[in-house]
Amino acid sequence: MPELRKDTILGRWVIISTERSKRPHDFVTEKLVANGKFCPFCNGAEDSTPPEIWAIRDPNTAPNTPGWQVRVVANKYPALRIEGEFNRTGVGMYDMMNGIGAHEVIIETPNHEATIGTMSVDEVDRILLAYKVRMLDLLGDRRFQYILIFRNRGSAAGATLEHPHSQLIALPIVPKSVTEEIAGANTYYDFRERCVFCDIVRQELSDKVRLILETEHFISFEPFASRFPYETWIIPKRHYSSYEHIENNVQRDLALIIRDTVNRINTVLDYPPYNWILHTAPAHQTEMYQYHWHFEIMPKLTQVAGFEWGSGFYINPTPPEQAAADLRLENM
Amino acid sequence: MPELRKDTILGRWVIISTERSKRPHDFVTEKLVANGKFCPFCNGAEDSTPPEIWAIRDPNTAPNTPGWQVRVVANKYPALRIEGEFNRTGVGMYDMMNGIGAHEVIIETPNHEATIGTMSVDEVDRILLAYKVRMLDLLGDRRFQYILIFRNRGSAAGATLEHPHSQLIALPIVPKSVTEEIAGANTYYDFRERCVFCDIVRQELSDKVRLILETEHFISFEPFASRFPYETWIIPKRHYSSYEHIENNVQRDLALIIRDTVNRINTVLDYPPYNWILHTAPAHQTEMYQYHWHFEIMPKLTQVAGFEWGSGFYINPTPPEQAAADLRLENM
Repeated sequence: MPELRKDTILGRWVIISTERSKRPHDFVTEKLVANGKFCPFCNGAEDSTPPEIWAIRDPNTAPNTPGWQVRVVANKYPALRIEGEFNRTGVGMYDMMNGIGAHEVIIETPNHEATIGTMSVDEVDRILLAYKVRMLDLLGDRRFQYILIFRNRGSAAGATLEHPHSQLIALPIVPKSVTEEIAGANTYYDFRERCVFCDIVRQELSDKVRLILETEHFISFEPFASRFPYETWIIPKRHYSSYEHIENNVQRDLALIIRDTVNRINTVLDYPPYNWILHTAPAHQTEMYQYHWHFEIMPKLTQVAGFEWGSGFYINPTPPEQAAADLRLENM
Repeated sequence: MPELRKDTILGRWVIISTERSKRPHDFVTEKLVANGKFCPFCNGAEDSTPPEIWAIRDPNTAPNTPGWQVRVVANKYPALRIEGEFNRTGVGMYDMMNGIGAHEVIIETPNHEATIGTMSVDEVDRILLAYKVRMLDLLGDRRFQYILIFRNRGSAAGATLEHPHSQLIALPIVPKSVTEEIAGANTYYDFRERCVFCDIVRQELSDKVRLILETEHFISFEPFASRFPYETWIIPKRHYSSYEHIENNVQRDLALIIRDTVNRINTVLDYPPYNWILHTAPAHQTEMYQYHWHFEIMPKLTQVAGFEWGSGFYINPTPPEQAAADLRLENM
């Protein structure tokens, strides 16, 4: 059973893998499964993953056979385990709990070589539907406090498989970054009685210098205090705190802006490795007046992250106004 | 002039470079200056750096000529500028200040191929003396709120030059990670009326399972909630909040444990890229009862950092007890 351990100073929880733990020689052997090698996520390889939890399929096709468009399976090497009861204990002065949770993989397409930037809007829309359906299902389990959805693209961004996929981790705690975001949003709300994210949307639509794209329901933009070159956020213009309540027409508009924004990033930065993370409200909340869900996309262009995650201090060599102009294709 | 911009939600400050800003094609051309190429930090190349600020030199040698053992110079491409007055302004709803600060390079040795793990204790002691001397000097400038000292080793850890060196950044703000550490330490102190770091030292000396080395004044160990495989802390056993007050005999003992601990990391992990960061109290503080300076060393073994700095959520595949046993050379 993996362990969740709490950093006594910072209050941050960390998952420590206790099974299959990595030793010095394991770190050099990690390789990305590239084109041409066997891929467990491809069409026809359905029996090389755990059984499917949910899928969008052609009529009259059986689970775990070809004929799917999006397929959700348990992660074969989960960071957390779904079985068991929640149990918190002390270890000397420290605190831990057993690693209860869910770890799923959303296989986004049967096409190994697809990229988000060149998919149809329908294809991206199906991925977003999978996010929503799996969140709604897992939120029924009262042990889970947060559903974290992320996508690693490229080995430098931590992907171990090339086939397009997202991951979902259901956690028995709320990650510290989410708690901090909510605390910061609360402070702003206390002062101004407005949602800070709604104010950011208004500011960016007015300034326009950091804006990339605008659709009916969304904007994509470079944040004023971007930590990383070409860091990009996609945020709904209307106030929503929880992603899983997204309406079908809004989801389709999100698919459009994600597709077009990622396509810009791929064009300008030549298919960089990147991570995207869905920031959404914790589980079991009614609509929160001060929080606002959004996607953060972080291209991984520099190697300085090591120092920066250690110090919490960021040096960004590309002003976001310059990055936004590049992504608006003004200088091509 | 670089800009310091504040993240309105999280309260985190980011340095945005406005001169020499990087565009898409700049990110692929970064290369480490390797052995055999011209190195501006080597003996005899003194005129290819800005003039020296401080050095340990052979008697009767002139500044900016050979004959030095440790040499401190301004960073040729500084993230912050030393000239100018402090100026905070609003930009719409956002906040910024001009990028006042110092950015220095501590060239640790004239020997390009030296490594900390194989230096003599005297050599490491001189580097630590340079840290102290430069901190004491810069702390005389009341504009600076924090002196951040770090060391990037290997291109995957963000080093752009191979020659052994550390960096120092004097900041007009306290980095968020330091503020958070102090806030966490305050919470613990309020509850237990003891320094959390002192308690950690006692716990690790008692448990021994995460301990690597112990000297007269220090321990090196793997933290209970390590974020990264083989993350290693070096901490004084006695309570001190500010590094710059270190006594000479304690500094020499620190040189010994740093040298031996880094040597273990290099041996077990085959000279991994790593970052080390000196965590010390903010400037202009009297001795703080709840804070305790220490070094954090983070080998960069995995590529998952992208997701992890984005979410604040860490998955560590190597239990710290296993890592400590490896670094105690128990399994070799």
